[in-house]
Amino acid sequence: MTVENLQTRLAAAAERLDTVMAADLATVTNHRLKEVLEHALLAGGKRIRPLLTLLAARLTMAADQAAGAPAQPPASSGDPTALERLAIAFEYLHTASLLHDDVIDHAAQRRGRDTVNHRWDGSHAILAGDFLHARAMRLAGSHGGPPCLELIGTATEAMVAAEFLQAATARQRDWRQQTYFAVLDGKTAALIAAACECGAAATGGDHTQRRALRVYGANLGLAFQIIDDLLDFLGEPQATGKAAGNDLQEGKMTLPLLLAHERATADQRRWLERLLAAEPAQRRSELPGVRELLEQTGAFAACRAEARGLLEAGRAGLEIFPDGPERQLLQDLGDYVLRRDR
Amino acid sequence: MTVENLQTRLAAAAERLDTVMAADLATVTNHRLKEVLEHALLAGGKRIRPLLTLLAARLTMAADQAAGAPAQPPASSGDPTALERLAIAFEYLHTASLLHDDVIDHAAQRRGRDTVNHRWDGSHAILAGDFLHARAMRLAGSHGGPPCLELIGTATEAMVAAEFLQAATARQRDWRQQTYFAVLDGKTAALIAAACECGAAATGGDHTQRRALRVYGANLGLAFQIIDDLLDFLGEPQATGKAAGNDLQEGKMTLPLLLAHERATADQRRWLERLLAAEPAQRRSELPGVRELLEQTGAFAACRAEARGLLEAGRAGLEIFPDGPERQLLQDLGDYVLRRDR
Repeated sequence: MTVENLQTRLAAAAERLDTVMAADLATVTNHRLKEVLEHALLAGGKRIRPLLTLLAARLTMAADQAAGAPAQPPASSGDPTALERLAIAFEYLHTASLLHDDVIDHAAQRRGRDTVNHRWDGSHAILAGDFLHARAMRLAGSHGGPPCLELIGTATEAMVAAEFLQAATARQRDWRQQTYFAVLDGKTAALIAAACECGAAATGGDHTQRRALRVYGANLGLAFQIIDDLLDFLGEPQATGKAAGNDLQEGKMTLPLLLAHERATADQRRWLERLLAAEPAQRRSELPGVRELLEQTGAFAACRAEARGLLEAGRAGLEIFPDGPERQLLQDLGDYVLRRDR
Repeated sequence: MTVENLQTRLAAAAERLDTVMAADLATVTNHRLKEVLEHALLAGGKRIRPLLTLLAARLTMAADQAAGAPAQPPASSGDPTALERLAIAFEYLHTASLLHDDVIDHAAQRRGRDTVNHRWDGSHAILAGDFLHARAMRLAGSHGGPPCLELIGTATEAMVAAEFLQAATARQRDWRQQTYFAVLDGKTAALIAAACECGAAATGGDHTQRRALRVYGANLGLAFQIIDDLLDFLGEPQATGKAAGNDLQEGKMTLPLLLAHERATADQRRWLERLLAAEPAQRRSELPGVRELLEQTGAFAACRAEARGLLEAGRAGLEIFPDGPERQLLQDLGDYVLRRDR
């Protein structure tokens, strides 16, 4: 599938999920709360997490049918299905974490719009996040059952623990890949892995199927974030929607930097260490020099190779499922992550 | 039972629940996160919500036995039981909401100790609250099942909606009891009602038993808050641990004020309305005058009567259960709420 075709299919699926969320939010009676939730949720977005839940569920059902189980009846109307309601729980959880992150970071903009804490205030963002968290758990409990709740609870706890780990290690200038991946596992991979595994768990997937989808999701999440970290050095603001060099300015220890540090000469390494200890503005002003070092040490290429390796391992695990449109789409998503420029 | 005996029994039960929580928190590996959670959770407290879950569960099981079901085996060791793990979910949820409330209110002290946002910062309090919320849902899902999750999710959503309602109505000087009770239902009664009903739901209670315990819990919560609002006018700082007149200073429209307003002469009413529109410091300075008006109009007595009526209705509902120590303790709790001075 070409990237353009894939984007068209993803956009159509995202639109359908937006309809499901809008229908769910229609039950919120407090006017202001509803307004805040709609602002936070319905501002567009790729809806990758709920989409993964749906694809994982369909893949598991397709495997059942290939093994002789009766086919599920097709959805007969436009009403949201139980699986769609389970799926949007993952968009709610993701949005709840963004709402709280934006309060913590005092962020004023996200995806080109005012954040809730900027447009209203921090209390609106905290409470709206709590509401979405609670609603997500209700949806997951009703439509996914105890296994999904266990997965989601574990993922949310991992997200919080990773925030604490990141805060503790950020000021220590920890150059170890192990730390970088530990933070990434909790902050990004855990929820995406849970979104995939829940799709299988909710449709009676066995241990092997659940594990394959969990690993696929975790690796997709890691690769996505690695490419994100790469684009922060390379990206053009017109394409990414944000200025390059933000991570460098904030002193984030991302994989491109860690790999360059590993591969650099002793002199280059000292220069890099001094730069990371310098003032934010100075770090930003040195972006061209850092970019050159990353190029020269092969850090960019190594990052892409790391992301590609993760995606290939995740995709290979899906070979236990029968070939078909769901498996193809999940496998194509990997290429999309690798090729994306924003 | 005397109030002193009751307090001794409650303290012993609270100590046991502290042990269960400490054992659960021992599984948290991030050192700082664990420290924050212990600070927020293990600072003492009456543990009313989890205690209600345990009592409601035991009451439901006692009714089963009275109807001929085999007795449950007594807990054979000091290990936490599934019911105790379910119960602490309610202390976690309550604490999560306090953590977030303290960020929203910029509160520096709670129960005579530094708040988490004051001792560390707002991000610690937001994230620790999110962690407790997620952990509570996992505990409730594992040990209470889908009905408990549905109850907890609904209660949490009601808490958030009530915060929005309160914010919207606070500045409008809304003198209607209906608004006061709508806020109270969501902010205080919903979670206590859910704590009671979950005890019944987790032990196979039927619809009638669940409703009786839900109404008992909701009414206990309402009565508790009404007495709290009363003590804010009457309480001695030595006994309540906080200065009297805080609600008046903040301009909160609590039941004593609403009842005085209803019963006052036209002149007194205008004075009260002007006072509520005045500066906080002026409101506080008029505390003696307001207290006198509340006394003179019978607002204090009417508040106590309202609380007593709620408690009696809740207690009467428990008559469907067999008499015994659990029912007695739940019924005594009402007297304790009415007689408390802090």
